[in-house]
Amino acid sequence: MCDDDKKIDIKTPVMEKNDMIAGENRRYLQGLNLLTLNLISSPGAGKTTVLEAMARYFGSRMAVIEGDVQTRRDAERIEKAGCRAWQIETGGACHLDAGAVKHALGHMELEKDELSLLAIENVGNLICPSGYDLGEDIRIGLLSTPEGDDKVLKYPSLFSSIDLMIINKMDLTAHLDFDVERAIEECRSLNPEVRVFTVSARTGEGMEELCTFIQSQLPGSGPKRG
Amino acid sequence: MCDDDKKIDIKTPVMEKNDMIAGENRRYLQGLNLLTLNLISSPGAGKTTVLEAMARYFGSRMAVIEGDVQTRRDAERIEKAGCRAWQIETGGACHLDAGAVKHALGHMELEKDELSLLAIENVGNLICPSGYDLGEDIRIGLLSTPEGDDKVLKYPSLFSSIDLMIINKMDLTAHLDFDVERAIEECRSLNPEVRVFTVSARTGEGMEELCTFIQSQLPGSGPKRG
Repeated sequence: MCDDDKKIDIKTPVMEKNDMIAGENRRYLQGLNLLTLNLISSPGAGKTTVLEAMARYFGSRMAVIEGDVQTRRDAERIEKAGCRAWQIETGGACHLDAGAVKHALGHMELEKDELSLLAIENVGNLICPSGYDLGEDIRIGLLSTPEGDDKVLKYPSLFSSIDLMIINKMDLTAHLDFDVERAIEECRSLNPEVRVFTVSARTGEGMEELCTFIQSQLPGSGPKRG
Repeated sequence: MCDDDKKIDIKTPVMEKNDMIAGENRRYLQGLNLLTLNLISSPGAGKTTVLEAMARYFGSRMAVIEGDVQTRRDAERIEKAGCRAWQIETGGACHLDAGAVKHALGHMELEKDELSLLAIENVGNLICPSGYDLGEDIRIGLLSTPEGDDKVLKYPSLFSSIDLMIINKMDLTAHLDFDVERAIEECRSLNPEVRVFTVSARTGEGMEELCTFIQSQLPGSGPKRG
């Protein structure tokens, strides 16, 4: 639930507090030699299916934090795919913030594991999560082809802030009017440095390339991030 | 942009104020003999395509308010399909509220037209819009098949609050694992009175039935709403 028409300006101190906690999360996670991802998309774009495919690739080297308004379904799917998952049930909230992630990290005992990768699945929403740094190293915007190729310019605050765009559900493009080149060009017009991967998490198409790239970004894996 | 972790409880007065303005909008619109719809869905679920198909059916009897974070693209699509459209560009906001709709109504000169139907396309988001009454007569939740049949129980505050569920993109079900009966049953478990229409706005499948139902709800069209 959001309150934009409030009278008292509390946005600035709230964001400053979020950024401060995000910085603490980042130092803590990097201190554990973890690479942290923040996955943002619409509901149903395929974040959990992408993470299931990644869980099969990285296995016990990966852990997942699931942000969900309600239900533990996504966390259960991830656990079945082979890695540990923690659920943050947000109740009515429409995004994760750094404080919620910090709270989860306090319960996860990450230092006891042989982990190198932590993926955070944000709440399904293209708007509200884009303003909240969680302490991630790589912010990922996931766009699925049935949503339409116009979504990049409709949600510029997200697509200008990401490090990596995944275009998912490539197996459906034959049945849609989605112009992949247009979506990529419009994202690069906002965000020239963005990396793009086209995948179908359901069929596995493109997932090897995506996982190989993420592997190359893990701490101690040769040429550095970026 | 949402601020949920604020210290000061301003949610109650904000919602009371919203409900008060929504009541004013409802009285004003019903006074003009207009039926008002509030369409809520994820980004890319097909709200605009459904409204284009409705614009071809209702023509100049229908007007549309488009809520969009950025760009006038959707309003332009609706105008091309044959009815008037007003844009509310929300900037960063993730939902419409009754005040934004009231502001738009003040510019629309609806009393000069031969209108019987006003459709409000909310911002693409399954969470934040669900708490805000805009003054509509019928609240519509639109779920598209590529999003998955698990979305009803993941977003109960929306799906328990709607009068009508539209399941869109039925033409894609052959390529998906979407269980239509499951989605309908789960919606009815939250919301026993909900009406359901299955459509493909792109191919036109089911749109005649949907438009005929909405026609039957227009003021002065026989048996009353509900």
